[in-house]
Amino acid sequence: MHLTVIARILGIFLMLFSITMLPPILVSMYYNDGATEAFLLAMILIFGIGFTSWLPVRAVRQELRNRDGFLIAALFWLTLGLAGTLPFMISTNPGLSFADAFFESLSGWTTTGATVMTGLEHLPKSILWYRQQLQWMGGMGIIVLAVAILPMLGIGGMQLYRAEMPGPMKDSKLTPRIAETAKALWYIYLFLTIACGLAYWAAGMSMFDAFAHSMATIGIGGFSTYDASIGYFNSPLIEGIAIFFMLIAGLNFSLHFYAWRNHTLSHYWSDSELKFFFLVLSGGALMTISALWYTDTYDFANSVRYGLFELVSVATTAGFGTSDFSVWPVFLPVLLFMMAFIGGCTGSTGGGMKVIRVLLIYKQGVREIRRLIHPNAVIPVKLGRRAVPDRILDAVWGFFAMYIVTFMVMMLALMATGLDQVTAFSAVGSCLNNLGPGLGDVAAHYGNISDTAKWLLALTMLLGRLEIFTLLVLLSPTFWRN
Amino acid sequence: MHLTVIARILGIFLMLFSITMLPPILVSMYYNDGATEAFLLAMILIFGIGFTSWLPVRAVRQELRNRDGFLIAALFWLTLGLAGTLPFMISTNPGLSFADAFFESLSGWTTTGATVMTGLEHLPKSILWYRQQLQWMGGMGIIVLAVAILPMLGIGGMQLYRAEMPGPMKDSKLTPRIAETAKALWYIYLFLTIACGLAYWAAGMSMFDAFAHSMATIGIGGFSTYDASIGYFNSPLIEGIAIFFMLIAGLNFSLHFYAWRNHTLSHYWSDSELKFFFLVLSGGALMTISALWYTDTYDFANSVRYGLFELVSVATTAGFGTSDFSVWPVFLPVLLFMMAFIGGCTGSTGGGMKVIRVLLIYKQGVREIRRLIHPNAVIPVKLGRRAVPDRILDAVWGFFAMYIVTFMVMMLALMATGLDQVTAFSAVGSCLNNLGPGLGDVAAHYGNISDTAKWLLALTMLLGRLEIFTLLVLLSPTFWRN
Ligand SMILES: [K+]
Ligand SMILES: [K+]
Repeated sequence: MHLTVIARILGIFLMLFSITMLPPILVSMYYNDGATEAFLLAMILIFGIGFTSWLPVRAVRQELRNRDGFLIAALFWLTLGLAGTLPFMISTNPGLSFADAFFESLSGWTTTGATVMTGLEHLPKSILWYRQQLQWMGGMGIIVLAVAILPMLGIGGMQLYRAEMPGPMKDSKLTPRIAETAKALWYIYLFLTIACGLAYWAAGMSMFDAFAHSMATIGIGGFSTYDASIGYFNSPLIEGIAIFFMLIAGLNFSLHFYAWRNHTLSHYWSDSELKFFFLVLSGGALMTISALWYTDTYDFANSVRYGLFELVSVATTAGFGTSDFSVWPVFLPVLLFMMAFIGGCTGSTGGGMKVIRVLLIYKQGVREIRRLIHPNAVIPVKLGRRAVPDRILDAVWGFFAMYIVTFMVMMLALMATGLDQVTAFSAVGSCLNNLGPGLGDVAAHYGNISDTAKWLLALTMLLGRLEIFTLLVLLSPTFWRN
Repeated sequence: MHLTVIARILGIFLMLFSITMLPPILVSMYYNDGATEAFLLAMILIFGIGFTSWLPVRAVRQELRNRDGFLIAALFWLTLGLAGTLPFMISTNPGLSFADAFFESLSGWTTTGATVMTGLEHLPKSILWYRQQLQWMGGMGIIVLAVAILPMLGIGGMQLYRAEMPGPMKDSKLTPRIAETAKALWYIYLFLTIACGLAYWAAGMSMFDAFAHSMATIGIGGFSTYDASIGYFNSPLIEGIAIFFMLIAGLNFSLHFYAWRNHTLSHYWSDSELKFFFLVLSGGALMTISALWYTDTYDFANSVRYGLFELVSVATTAGFGTSDFSVWPVFLPVLLFMMAFIGGCTGSTGGGMKVIRVLLIYKQGVREIRRLIHPNAVIPVKLGRRAVPDRILDAVWGFFAMYIVTFMVMMLALMATGLDQVTAFSAVGSCLNNLGPGLGDVAAHYGNISDTAKWLLALTMLLGRLEIFTLLVLLSPTFWRN
């Protein structure tokens, strides 16, 4: 491993992160909420640590191997997750413990949106802004990771995506150089955030709330500045805007990139993953709305309103709420959680297993049935008009199995700490899929579970965000052998 | 489809099944339990239906295609499941409804062992015997299905097994002709049942109980003649015998066949599946026993006694009980259920996904990690010294995914009927893995859930027993074309 180079890179990340304390500082000063000094101190500390890490190795120039990418990706979230705890601990309100602060910070960075805090209305505005900003930066990190870095490492959904890319897109290759790609993605991400924020503002949110929620929407994070989440505004218009932008953010950013470059929208509908995504969402919405109506939970209009919002919110893994779905007829929350396992499209800020993997698993299932009937036929699995290489199918199966195994192991571990089955199921499902809300003891927030459970769930968020294998590889002895 | 030939075969099965009413009739006469006429009537009805089905088509001789095997396997369990309801409905004690009787009968035939009845001690002895006998015949059917029929169809665990068979065994091919193979397996099955029955008897059970439980042990069915199951006898010796024979019945009967033919035991330990089976069992036992001891549920001796028994009983999917594990610390029942998902070895009477599939999934996971580190290496997945063909790996993945999806869909469907999450999770997990006992509302028995839930669970048992694809193929339009 090129540990010195990695120290240099992480040092730079930390120094950059320290600069992002400026917006909370401005917010704090504007509202005079008493947290200004906390953010200043955090800024100095984070910059100091970053600088100390960078200084001794600043001159080291070594070619990074692909393999180093695994370590960098894991350490990126871990280091920034740790650094992100400082404002939560230093500011006397909320003055979180280390375990709580790490849970909250990592939940932000991984865009999970699970929170240990309640009474958000009583927190300093700057802390609220800071939480939203963590999710926004986390979302940006995920897209760069998914679109630019993971494919280099030969993992992640984008690798699958490449196999499918239509001709012109394949040629442009999202530009071969990471820096350029990242810059283009950054513009798109910023543009969407501003558009979403302006729409919220126009629909009646305050400017603060509008951009706070816009950051969590485009990042598919799901943090809110109110305990009641989007439900606080009680506005169908705002809910409609949220649905629209959650869906946009749940799509592959390569598609947005292509639209941006080539000024066209037609390619969206030739994308297999997108079509399957909307098919799954429509099926889920139909079931949710019918069930709510049929069980008289709401009248028809409200069944549509609350059902559609919650379905999109959970299926994209945003995790915003307009109603407390933990009190809906029992099978609905479980249905919603299963939708979260499917998650967003690859190359989006959403969590879950990613739509394209589920699509490939479905196609493989159909192929197996055909093979049983025609044992000697050669039947390729196709995406669009291209056959998917076996190697990629293998990776999808491997991922699926590891995902299920990780889920089971973590659920058992949480139950061993004393949580009941419904709580453990939902907490692990929520954190692994980077969703946010839970059921049972974590229906309202994650503040009342043990510290051990919080650490385990933080690990689960990280496993989900790094698509499991990025972390598993680090545990393999082969990785550390040269 | 060759429906006439299939009608002939099912007619023969039914006539043969009617003959198996004789032992219950003898038991009923011996104990004078009042159910003699019910069994006589059932015998006549079943014979009559079988005869009517066979008579018009008895002369039809058509070569069966492989594809017909799917239909025969599904109809075998369905028809016999239906026919098996008669004694339960005709005998005034228990005098079950059709839904209850079908659940109980199919639970017997599929060796699931879930029961809708309680107060077993008050049932006619002949009914008790009949239930055990259903499991015994179901177990025999499974082995013939797994060892002789499914491989012909290109599915099922044995196909995997063939890939691994050591040289001499591969040559003997378990004999190419189904009838011969089935006969040899029948002798082994009978021998094991008698050995187990004699051991139970020597350990203190009555002759009736000894053979009743022996049939359910070798069939890995788990029905008992007492509500308290094996716990009724409160005898460590009997529990030890049960553990031994559950393990024997949980192994691949091809191994027993080889031992029988070649008078050797050495091949057992060169079998990868068997080694992995015992590795998984040891790990599970260690965790179960430590958790029982650590949480002070029992003292050390009883933690070993009850923990080991329950672990083996659930992991082999027998489902016998010596203690009520639904009241153990919450994470243990869930751990045990996850062991049941692994299940027995292929070609055994056990349920679950089968050990060899789980082993292959594990090996594939390890390969994926290696591939990430060495992207250009060609790394085969091996069993013993042989590389497993890609086609077989595909089948394993397809099975795993369908198994998980079936589990989720059925769990959602059960929750939609109004069951809570823990009950639905355990009921579906128990029926899909052909295990038997559940948690929550089905912890004691399955009598209190709705008829809809019972039908859904009966379908789940059938899906599990037929390894899902045998049934799924029948739903494919391609199957019925031509
Ligand atoms: K989220
Ligand atoms: K069983």
